[in-house]
Amino acid sequence: MKVPRSIGCTALLLIAGVSAQTFQRLGTCPTLGCIFPPDQADFLAGQHFDIRLEVHAPLNGSEATGNPHADEKFTFTITKGKRKAVSAVDYFKLPEPKLEHWNFTWFEDLFAKDAGKPSVVNVTSKAYRKVALHEPGEYTATLTYNNGTITKASWLVRDLQEVRKTKNIVLFIGDGMTTNMITAARLIAHKTVNGKYQSLMAMDKFPVLGHQMTHSIDSFITDSANSATALYTGHKSTVNCLGVYADSSKDPFDDPKVETIAEMFHRLIGGSIGIVSTAFIADATPAALTAHTRDRSQYGSIVDAFLNGVTNYTWTNWTGPDVLFGGGAEQFYDPKLGGKTYQNKNYYDEFARKGYQVLWNNTALSKAKSDSKALGIFTVSNMAKWLDRNVYKTNLNQSLSPSGDTTPALDQPGLKDMTLKAIDILSARSGDKGFFLMSEAASIDKMMHVLDYDRALGELLELDDTIKATIERLKTLNKFKETLILVTADHGHGFDVMGSVDTKYMAVQKTDRKKRDAIGTYQNSGLSQYANTGNLTYTEGVHFPSNWDPRYTLFQGLKANPDIRENFQVHKDGPRSPAVNISNTSAADYYVNPKDGKDGFVVNGTLPPSDDQGVHSLTDVPVFAMGPCQERFGGVYSSTDVFFGMAECLGLGRGRHH
Amino acid sequence: MKVPRSIGCTALLLIAGVSAQTFQRLGTCPTLGCIFPPDQADFLAGQHFDIRLEVHAPLNGSEATGNPHADEKFTFTITKGKRKAVSAVDYFKLPEPKLEHWNFTWFEDLFAKDAGKPSVVNVTSKAYRKVALHEPGEYTATLTYNNGTITKASWLVRDLQEVRKTKNIVLFIGDGMTTNMITAARLIAHKTVNGKYQSLMAMDKFPVLGHQMTHSIDSFITDSANSATALYTGHKSTVNCLGVYADSSKDPFDDPKVETIAEMFHRLIGGSIGIVSTAFIADATPAALTAHTRDRSQYGSIVDAFLNGVTNYTWTNWTGPDVLFGGGAEQFYDPKLGGKTYQNKNYYDEFARKGYQVLWNNTALSKAKSDSKALGIFTVSNMAKWLDRNVYKTNLNQSLSPSGDTTPALDQPGLKDMTLKAIDILSARSGDKGFFLMSEAASIDKMMHVLDYDRALGELLELDDTIKATIERLKTLNKFKETLILVTADHGHGFDVMGSVDTKYMAVQKTDRKKRDAIGTYQNSGLSQYANTGNLTYTEGVHFPSNWDPRYTLFQGLKANPDIRENFQVHKDGPRSPAVNISNTSAADYYVNPKDGKDGFVVNGTLPPSDDQGVHSLTDVPVFAMGPCQERFGGVYSSTDVFFGMAECLGLGRGRHH
Repeated sequence: MKVPRSIGCTALLLIAGVSAQTFQRLGTCPTLGCIFPPDQADFLAGQHFDIRLEVHAPLNGSEATGNPHADEKFTFTITKGKRKAVSAVDYFKLPEPKLEHWNFTWFEDLFAKDAGKPSVVNVTSKAYRKVALHEPGEYTATLTYNNGTITKASWLVRDLQEVRKTKNIVLFIGDGMTTNMITAARLIAHKTVNGKYQSLMAMDKFPVLGHQMTHSIDSFITDSANSATALYTGHKSTVNCLGVYADSSKDPFDDPKVETIAEMFHRLIGGSIGIVSTAFIADATPAALTAHTRDRSQYGSIVDAFLNGVTNYTWTNWTGPDVLFGGGAEQFYDPKLGGKTYQNKNYYDEFARKGYQVLWNNTALSKAKSDSKALGIFTVSNMAKWLDRNVYKTNLNQSLSPSGDTTPALDQPGLKDMTLKAIDILSARSGDKGFFLMSEAASIDKMMHVLDYDRALGELLELDDTIKATIERLKTLNKFKETLILVTADHGHGFDVMGSVDTKYMAVQKTDRKKRDAIGTYQNSGLSQYANTGNLTYTEGVHFPSNWDPRYTLFQGLKANPDIRENFQVHKDGPRSPAVNISNTSAADYYVNPKDGKDGFVVNGTLPPSDDQGVHSLTDVPVFAMGPCQERFGGVYSSTDVFFGMAECLGLGRGRHH
Repeated sequence: MKVPRSIGCTALLLIAGVSAQTFQRLGTCPTLGCIFPPDQADFLAGQHFDIRLEVHAPLNGSEATGNPHADEKFTFTITKGKRKAVSAVDYFKLPEPKLEHWNFTWFEDLFAKDAGKPSVVNVTSKAYRKVALHEPGEYTATLTYNNGTITKASWLVRDLQEVRKTKNIVLFIGDGMTTNMITAARLIAHKTVNGKYQSLMAMDKFPVLGHQMTHSIDSFITDSANSATALYTGHKSTVNCLGVYADSSKDPFDDPKVETIAEMFHRLIGGSIGIVSTAFIADATPAALTAHTRDRSQYGSIVDAFLNGVTNYTWTNWTGPDVLFGGGAEQFYDPKLGGKTYQNKNYYDEFARKGYQVLWNNTALSKAKSDSKALGIFTVSNMAKWLDRNVYKTNLNQSLSPSGDTTPALDQPGLKDMTLKAIDILSARSGDKGFFLMSEAASIDKMMHVLDYDRALGELLELDDTIKATIERLKTLNKFKETLILVTADHGHGFDVMGSVDTKYMAVQKTDRKKRDAIGTYQNSGLSQYANTGNLTYTEGVHFPSNWDPRYTLFQGLKANPDIRENFQVHKDGPRSPAVNISNTSAADYYVNPKDGKDGFVVNGTLPPSDDQGVHSLTDVPVFAMGPCQERFGGVYSSTDVFFGMAECLGLGRGRHH
């Protein structure tokens, strides 16, 4: 979307750097002096962020200098354009931060890891908290250390239009969703007649299409924390990071923060925020809207951050979202019932005390008032899958009640129920200020991880059904014309469909090689049997498969997998568990789950044997846009540009006025 | 792009049809009465096509009726809208076609095939040749057979704008190219600094992005013949078909034809046509512009059709393209030298006799005149790959000279050389009429088939480099503002990148399971080593990897594969041959090529053991558009809509005026 700037000094040094790849001393810091945010970071004008400086003294390994002491006398300046550089203390009018010390270890490669020989690094550091750059343009941050060695970072405050173009945004995230998966979901749920689809996915009808690049700042494969951070803050980060750049300290809460779109929309405009997910609600994609931690697994703290924002460092005020719906009751109910909560509090009580309606099932959700804030937690852990809620319903017994009483959670809403109620509440409460809703179909990703393709596609179709219903609801509420709807993903899985499988033929063949003859490619793939035959669960118009268990199924899958057995049939007994640990030592060693994929053939793994599930992939993911400001989202761009696009559309790019 | 019409009668019957999938009696004909073009076909106003009718009498199997005689007294009518139906003979003012008879066999499923029990079908048939529908709107074609049984086909002549919006079209086809592959190519060829790309692919900069659905008319996985037919004619067809619908007769040349965009642009406007491919030129993607056959392997006839058009049936006049560049000399040189040509002619002579310059190498290509038609055939079979022409050059010895003299073809052009020369010739010769150029990067597909990921990505990067150079050349010729540039694919392969591989670590591990520990995912994927380190072959600005053989390579691949051994290293000795036939019977049985992937680990196949290579996949493929009329190509649509979009942009939608 913009012409790249000249490459900074750190980039030139990168080329000469060590070849470490599987492990890195510290991402985004190839030299011994580190600035966070690093070179090439982009900012929204006025966006709050922290600065972290580090100076490294490697004690051993390929980078050892012979001096074990990290420099304590480093200096740091800021300048805009060609102006004179001034110290950060003067620039930001802050007191000098205290000097910090720590050390950390890392492995230079797998040989060093096998040999148990880590490299040790001593560190000196300072952090400048809650600063901002208000004027658009290029800035240079300069760290001088070790008697004159320099690390520079070129920062850009983007010069955006300041006119607000949309009142509301609904951002749908299909976690792990790729174009390949959308194509497969369309195939099983929509009918073709002689090669012409008689209906299309809701997202197929969006007028503007883009692709966003999902890679991390320091590795080309991302996780959902890191990628959500990019989408919400405009700053790419490191795997497992929520709303921070990763420093090298052990404390998961002291890493340098960047302000999210939810925080800015709340602070600058007072708009309402809604957060909906089918995951446990402390999971990365919802969490990244308000949490700031290097460790996405700090679930208790993340739930506290939804309500109270950042409490351990100076940061922007936060008064909680208007809507918070999802799973993950274990971070809410009383520790006496087994809850794993922040400071052993009961978070149902904490939310209720601040005026939230507390909802535990779909019945209560449907009756909830639209004029009050609402917390809806509908199960322990992740919510039940569409396929189990709608087709294989006895599997709902595998869910636990949000109360913590260990009964099953049989009355769970789906993504559509939660999203429509969220829109009702946000519409009623946001007034002239507008709202921002993030709604996540989390288990596309979770089911692709366990290679349960049918459940993953069911979740994707539920997302699509939710999008369709959202458009209708917004029209009913007379909000459609003032709402930008975006549908995107945070990363992919290497999934595709390559043909069909005659499961009846496969089941009766005697050898693994002969079973493979059941696979039909090209003209032998034939037509989808999911939408056209028998066992009608859903009728025309709703666009889910009418038959999830046809004789001819899809030949589908991922290249990255543990050892598994594939029969390409729907898993009727609940989400798939493809591999089990066969190790009798502490080191995991996964092999085919003997209970999984009976009648199928064994496919040996391509991942390290310690992995029990599939992994994320590199592919650009689609962005579908409809509504005011939609034209901002066409073409190919970085995941961070989704943030800048949304921020500009909401009128948050207010450079000169603040 | 348009609201689907109501489902025709054949669709309702389809739901009740037999469950055959791996094999079908006849695609697009689930009943015993068949109309081609079938129900739901769309047409450009005035587009020439043939009609084929068939009545089937199954003698045995699940559909047998007891009557072995196919009806000879069937009738066929046409009507538009609510007008009175009239016989096709009257409607098109044609003589009654002669009645044809034949029979064919098929297997109902794999069990029937294993048992050697085919189903036999007797057929009666008629064909109406070279008809057209001139008025936009809905038509109904009705076949009445077996004493009153009816098959209806609803046909739509699209109502398009008739104002020409672009003078020229350059259509780039990356054969088999997916978004996933583009992402991988960007990763290895373009540098990032702290998560920000410092340069982008040429196609990344196109302003309009679409997705097209590639499936066949009668199977959800397509081949390149079928998909090229959809892109060039607006009619989806069957695997192996070029410019025809597949009937059940044995003759590969009597199937009902549909007119291509090249034929219409030539007939209606007299515009110039260019055809460029890195494949042998009789291969499906170039062939489908002028050939009309049910069997894409009729290579000799296909080459004749480039020059002379369809000669065995009434059809539109055709005088040959202005430019035809590619490989495949064996369909040109004298049969005395081993040429496999149509009617044993020397096609270099045939083309020369019609005024073509004949070019055999890059030197001659560079010196070719721009004011004469040109045939450039640069090697036997497929052209050498970018990686072999530019990095591992000794492999050029694996190519054979286009002369047929069995010497190596060492002076081969690349896609860029051929495309730029084509643009020079087309620009010089087309005058006010404009030109249509199809330029195909064929070996993205060919190298993905043999799981040679590096060569496939090299071909993709060459395509991107060609796009960049094309834009520059069009600007130089002052043709850029009057030329629509499209970049798309004809289908995908299920490819993605999931992490990195420490090839040095993998090579020295002793067991296959331990070798898998060399794979790094998520944060351990690290940064691309292809653009940043050592062995510089290409410099900044050209955007190919500087090092194809780094220690840390990509963990990449396809789910659909024969038994193979993967070491994830570049194949320096030429294109990969992943599996070999270990059978000592006539039935093929492929297993790991013992010479391939040494130091790697074995990945067992997921395809039938008779397959020696990967297969196509389902995924929607991207469409990048730039230039006049670009806005026509955003969003999600069928592959056939690419034809209608291009035809409309060229002003070929001339309904009422003819």
